[in-house]
Amino acid sequence: MPVYHIVLFKLKQGVKPEQIAQMSTLAKGMVGQIPGLRKLDFGGPLPVTAGRGKGYDMGIVAILDKPDDVTVYAQHPAHQE
Amino acid sequence: MPVYHIVLFKLKQGVKPEQIAQMSTLAKGMVGQIPGLRKLDFGGPLPVTAGRGKGYDMGIVAILDKPDDVTVYAQHPAHQE
Repeated sequence: MPVYHIVLFKLKQGVKPEQIAQMSTLAKGMVGQIPGLRKLDFGGPLPVTAGRGKGYDMGIVAILDKPDDVTVYAQHPAHQE
Repeated sequence: MPVYHIVLFKLKQGVKPEQIAQMSTLAKGMVGQIPGLRKLDFGGPLPVTAGRGKGYDMGIVAILDKPDDVTVYAQHPAHQE
Protein backbone atom coordinates (compact mmCIF):
# COMPACT_ATOMS: atom_id res chain seq x y z
CA MET A 1 0.00 0.00 0.00
CA PRO A 2 1.66 3.24 -1.16
CA VAL A 3 2.07 5.92 1.51
CA TYR A 4 2.12 9.72 1.29
CA HIS A 5 4.85 11.17 3.51
CA ILE A 6 4.09 14.87 3.91
CA VAL A 7 6.46 17.31 5.58
CA LEU A 8 5.62 20.98 5.96
CA PHE A 9 8.27 23.61 6.68
CA LYS A 10 8.40 27.18 7.91
CA LEU A 11 11.33 28.79 6.12
CA LYS A 12 13.61 31.02 8.20
CA GLN A 13 13.61 34.72 7.37
CA GLY A 14 16.06 35.62 4.62
CA VAL A 15 16.26 32.24 2.90
CA LYS A 16 17.35 32.97 -0.67
CA PRO A 17 15.69 31.57 -3.81
CA GLU A 18 18.90 29.77 -4.77
CA GLN A 19 18.94 28.02 -1.37
CA ILE A 20 15.36 26.88 -1.96
CA ALA A 21 16.31 25.69 -5.44
CA GLN A 22 19.19 23.71 -3.94
CA MET A 23 16.90 22.16 -1.32
CA SER A 24 14.50 21.17 -4.10
CA THR A 25 17.27 19.59 -6.17
CA LEU A 26 18.63 17.67 -3.17
CA ALA A 27 15.17 16.51 -2.10
CA LYS A 28 14.11 15.35 -5.55
CA GLY A 29 17.54 13.76 -5.99
CA MET A 30 16.72 11.28 -3.23
CA VAL A 31 14.47 9.43 -5.67
CA GLY A 32 16.56 6.61 -7.03
CA GLN A 33 18.82 6.61 -4.00
CA ILE A 34 16.38 5.62 -1.26
CA PRO A 35 14.70 2.22 -1.64
CA GLY A 36 10.92 2.48 -1.74
CA LEU A 37 10.89 6.17 -2.56
CA ARG A 38 8.75 6.36 -5.68
CA LYS A 39 8.24 10.07 -6.17
CA LEU A 40 8.98 13.31 -4.39
CA ASP A 41 7.63 16.80 -4.96
CA PHE A 42 8.88 19.94 -3.25
CA GLY A 43 7.37 23.39 -3.32
CA GLY A 44 5.43 26.20 -1.73
CA PRO A 45 1.70 26.81 -1.47
CA LEU A 46 -0.41 28.27 -4.25
CA PRO A 47 -1.44 31.92 -3.72
CA VAL A 48 -5.08 30.82 -3.51
CA THR A 49 -4.40 28.73 -0.39
CA ALA A 50 -1.23 30.30 1.05
CA GLY A 51 -3.27 32.32 3.53
CA ARG A 52 -4.56 29.14 5.16
CA GLY A 53 -1.15 27.51 5.55
CA LYS A 54 -0.66 28.54 9.20
CA GLY A 55 2.81 29.85 8.34
CA TYR A 56 3.96 26.71 6.57
CA ASP A 57 5.49 28.01 3.36
CA MET A 58 7.25 24.96 1.94
CA GLY A 59 6.35 21.31 1.70
CA ILE A 60 7.47 17.89 0.57
CA VAL A 61 5.11 15.21 -0.67
CA ALA A 62 6.92 11.90 -0.95
CA ILE A 63 5.25 8.73 -2.18
CA LEU A 64 6.68 5.57 -0.69
CA ASP A 65 5.91 1.98 -1.66
CA LYS A 66 4.83 0.84 1.81
CA PRO A 67 4.62 2.04 5.43
CA ASP A 68 7.93 0.44 6.45
CA ASP A 69 9.70 2.54 3.83
CA VAL A 70 9.07 5.67 5.91
CA THR A 71 11.66 4.52 8.43
CA VAL A 72 14.08 3.51 5.67
CA TYR A 73 13.62 6.97 4.17
CA ALA A 74 14.12 8.79 7.48
CA GLN A 75 17.33 6.91 8.34
CA HIS A 76 18.90 6.89 4.87
CA PRO A 77 22.17 8.84 4.42
CA ALA A 78 20.74 10.69 1.41
CA HIS A 79 17.94 11.98 3.66
CA GLN A 80 20.22 12.81 6.55
CA GLU A 81 22.56 14.96 4.44
CA MET B 1 0.73 21.04 -13.95
CA PRO B 2 -0.93 18.70 -11.41
CA VAL B 3 -1.33 20.11 -7.91
CA TYR B 4 -1.38 18.44 -4.50
CA HIS B 5 -4.11 19.91 -2.29
CA ILE B 6 -3.36 18.84 1.27
CA VAL B 7 -5.73 19.43 4.17
CA LEU B 8 -4.88 18.36 7.70
CA PHE B 9 -7.54 18.00 10.41
CA LYS B 10 -7.66 17.74 14.17
CA LEU B 11 -10.59 15.47 14.96
CA LYS B 12 -12.86 16.51 17.83
CA GLN B 13 -12.86 14.30 20.92
CA GLY B 14 -15.30 11.41 20.66
CA VAL B 15 -15.52 11.15 16.88
CA LYS B 16 -16.62 7.59 16.17
CA PRO B 17 -14.96 5.23 13.66
CA GLU B 18 -18.17 5.07 11.63
CA GLN B 19 -18.20 8.87 11.33
CA ILE B 20 -14.64 8.77 10.05
CA ALA B 21 -15.58 6.03 7.59
CA GLN B 22 -18.47 8.18 6.37
CA MET B 23 -16.17 11.19 5.96
CA SER B 24 -13.78 9.02 3.97
CA THR B 25 -16.54 7.73 1.70
CA LEU B 26 -17.90 11.24 1.09
CA ALA B 27 -14.43 12.67 0.45
CA LYS B 28 -13.39 9.95 -1.96
CA GLY B 29 -16.81 10.15 -3.62
CA MET B 30 -15.98 13.67 -4.81
CA VAL B 31 -13.74 12.15 -7.48
CA GLY B 32 -15.83 12.00 -10.62
CA GLN B 33 -18.10 14.79 -9.42
CA ILE B 34 -15.65 17.71 -9.26
CA PRO B 35 -13.97 18.67 -12.55
CA GLY B 36 -10.18 18.47 -12.37
CA LEU B 37 -10.15 16.28 -9.26
CA ARG B 38 -8.01 13.33 -10.30
CA LYS B 39 -7.50 11.43 -7.08
CA LEU B 40 -8.25 11.81 -3.40
CA ASP B 41 -6.90 9.92 -0.41
CA PHE B 42 -8.13 10.28 3.15
CA GLY B 43 -6.64 8.87 6.31
CA GLY B 44 -4.70 9.24 9.50
CA PRO B 45 -0.97 9.24 10.18
CA LEU B 46 1.14 6.12 10.45
CA PRO B 47 2.18 5.17 14.00
CA VAL B 48 5.82 5.81 13.08
CA THR B 49 5.14 9.49 12.36
CA ALA B 50 1.96 10.20 14.36
CA GLY B 51 4.00 11.70 17.22
CA ARG B 52 5.28 14.44 14.90
CA GLY B 53 1.88 15.42 13.57
CA LYS B 54 1.39 18.38 15.94
CA GLY B 55 -2.07 17.10 16.79
CA TYR B 56 -3.23 16.69 13.22
CA ASP B 57 -4.76 13.23 13.15
CA MET B 58 -6.52 13.10 9.79
CA GLY B 59 -5.61 14.30 6.35
CA ILE B 60 -6.74 14.61 2.76
CA VAL B 61 -4.37 14.50 -0.20
CA ALA B 62 -6.19 15.52 -3.36
CA ILE B 63 -4.52 15.63 -6.75
CA LEU B 64 -5.95 18.23 -9.09
CA ASP B 65 -5.16 18.75 -12.77
CA LYS B 66 -4.10 22.39 -12.47
CA PRO B 67 -3.89 25.24 -9.96
CA ASP B 68 -7.18 26.81 -11.03
CA ASP B 69 -8.97 23.58 -10.12
CA VAL B 70 -8.33 24.28 -6.43
CA THR B 71 -10.93 27.05 -6.51
CA VAL B 72 -13.36 24.90 -8.51
CA TYR B 73 -12.89 22.16 -5.90
CA ALA B 74 -13.39 24.50 -2.95
CA GLN B 75 -16.58 26.04 -4.33
CA HIS B 76 -18.16 22.85 -5.72
CA PRO B 77 -21.43 21.68 -4.09
CA ALA B 78 -20.01 18.17 -3.57
CA HIS B 79 -17.21 19.74 -1.49
CA GLN B 80 -19.49 22.08 0.40
CA GLU B 81 -21.84 19.29 1.52
